[in-house]
Amino acid sequence: MANELRKDYILNRWVVIASHRKRRPTDFRGNQVEENKVIICPFCPGNEHLTPPASLIYFMEDGELRKDYDKDGVRRKDWVIRCVPNLYPAFSPRKPGATLSPQADHIHVYMEALGYHEVLIESPNHDEHPSVSRIQQLVHVINALKDRVSFFMSREYVKYVSIFRNHGAKAGASLSHAHSQIIATPILPSIVEEERNVCEKYYVENGRCVFCRIIEAEIDSERFIWENNGFVVFAPWAPTNPFEFWIFPKRHQSLILELTEDETRDLAETLRVSFGGLRNLLSDPPYNFGFHMIPEKHYHWHIEVYPSLATWAGFEKSTGIYINVMPPEEAAKDLRESFKREEEAIKDFR
Amino acid sequence: MANELRKDYILNRWVVIASHRKRRPTDFRGNQVEENKVIICPFCPGNEHLTPPASLIYFMEDGELRKDYDKDGVRRKDWVIRCVPNLYPAFSPRKPGATLSPQADHIHVYMEALGYHEVLIESPNHDEHPSVSRIQQLVHVINALKDRVSFFMSREYVKYVSIFRNHGAKAGASLSHAHSQIIATPILPSIVEEERNVCEKYYVENGRCVFCRIIEAEIDSERFIWENNGFVVFAPWAPTNPFEFWIFPKRHQSLILELTEDETRDLAETLRVSFGGLRNLLSDPPYNFGFHMIPEKHYHWHIEVYPSLATWAGFEKSTGIYINVMPPEEAAKDLRESFKREEEAIKDFR
Repeated sequence: MANELRKDYILNRWVVIASHRKRRPTDFRGNQVEENKVIICPFCPGNEHLTPPASLIYFMEDGELRKDYDKDGVRRKDWVIRCVPNLYPAFSPRKPGATLSPQADHIHVYMEALGYHEVLIESPNHDEHPSVSRIQQLVHVINALKDRVSFFMSREYVKYVSIFRNHGAKAGASLSHAHSQIIATPILPSIVEEERNVCEKYYVENGRCVFCRIIEAEIDSERFIWENNGFVVFAPWAPTNPFEFWIFPKRHQSLILELTEDETRDLAETLRVSFGGLRNLLSDPPYNFGFHMIPEKHYHWHIEVYPSLATWAGFEKSTGIYINVMPPEEAAKDLRESFKREEEAIKDFR
Repeated sequence: MANELRKDYILNRWVVIASHRKRRPTDFRGNQVEENKVIICPFCPGNEHLTPPASLIYFMEDGELRKDYDKDGVRRKDWVIRCVPNLYPAFSPRKPGATLSPQADHIHVYMEALGYHEVLIESPNHDEHPSVSRIQQLVHVINALKDRVSFFMSREYVKYVSIFRNHGAKAGASLSHAHSQIIATPILPSIVEEERNVCEKYYVENGRCVFCRIIEAEIDSERFIWENNGFVVFAPWAPTNPFEFWIFPKRHQSLILELTEDETRDLAETLRVSFGGLRNLLSDPPYNFGFHMIPEKHYHWHIEVYPSLATWAGFEKSTGIYINVMPPEEAAKDLRESFKREEEAIKDFR
């Protein structure tokens, strides 16, 4: 079969689906997560003094979930979720005198990297990654993300909030304790800007959300992987990574802030099944994920999951065309079976 | 010093220049090239039967350089340069019946991956990489690239020719014998398309080439690294990689096909000094490079060199914003000194 060039649904991004060599999931193992060796984990309970003061803490009191943050340099110990500023932030809050928009010197455009960069510690348990987490703990994670996103989006100079996760040293994780990161930026990222522009254009021309149209097509395609009441998971048409999958809320919504309580629980279950299924299929591979969401009514938020199984080399870096040796239809078939097994396995304690 | 967000000269691509931790070149060592272990190198002399027949061979006869190619399955042995089709091509020549343009099924756009994918074996000597190569051998490499590019560009369905190089397993090289690759594609890559559009717009508005303007600015900046009569090397304003540098011909030209004999020699020297300088500074790091060139008169061809020293993680992959911990001005200072030493070292046998 000849290789196929495929364009992303939305982006001007092409991928070569290279099927000349038949690949099995086992061909991608040996990419297991390598632990970065750290003697003392700064995210484990008891080591709270090794991080900056928490901006948000969830803790239990009298069987009720309560919220707090670290005050006056004192670190709370009895947390179930903990958000802290990143010790080496890429983006930092505005100080007096900082200019809020890009400046230009002829061909050089620049601005201060204003914003926020926080770590969400997902559990007091070092290894409670989404692939093995309790569903209720993932509900806390999602609610804490909502709290922080809501705060960042209220800042005047924040144009975008990115939620992402790096799992495994090869995928850029410098600490192995279960955590995600949140970055608030003073610019709209180019990838999201391109999505937004296509969404708007599609809405004007067709009177509906382009992502709703994509979900409708893929839920009945050979790229479909899994669904529950609130969410659907599928392999995208033109993935840049082997075994890439995307997670969408079925109901049209722009931001995770719009999640109902039921949908929050459905998302928690989706994360558990998805990352448990991925772990089982490929022996706990390194991966990244990123949320895409903007507060515009024709936009449909979603999560893109990128297993870190390929090396992007000179061709990808200089052209923006990607070569993917795993056709998404085959990846979806393997993931579908693995997700199903994971769903069965957790049924009893859901 | 606060981190700075910088936009690429041309592309809608932003980079965070993160200078919170002072980095020295030694912080980036330990990324040395790992050899992929291969018992028999298919690119070494004597093993020609392990590759497809050569599409181009340079050989010496009576002190003159001559050209040939492999005919009737017989492999020539006495080559100094050898081009062969890639055994696992991403793009393949058109067969009868293939359609030449993208097709669409609602939201799914695709076409056959038509084109060419060749390997240019840069020397009979396994380890004669550009960083240690004889200048004359690099002249042969450049001339062979010109020959193949000229052929590919004459095919009706070829819209772009990409020349790139992967050095070291971490940078995607599957074989360690000195080689580059050439891919001819039936689409214009998105990165190059975006450059072309800005070039055209800049020309209409300013009556000149935007890259000529960039060279003029950077040759006198703290990002300048090295120059000879024909070429200039500088660290770009918003590099996505630590120690990234770009190589431009000083004279405005769209394609390497326009290189004069003197410029070809100047480019060979530039490659030797650049990759020798990079090797010395960072202990032979893995890297990729890619040429950018299109046959349009307002475009200015160049080479972008990406040392493979950073891991792009969830934030980069989901937003298209890059975090670079090495400010290009500091990288340029280190590279400038290292290139100068390399130039001195090779002066006697140039």
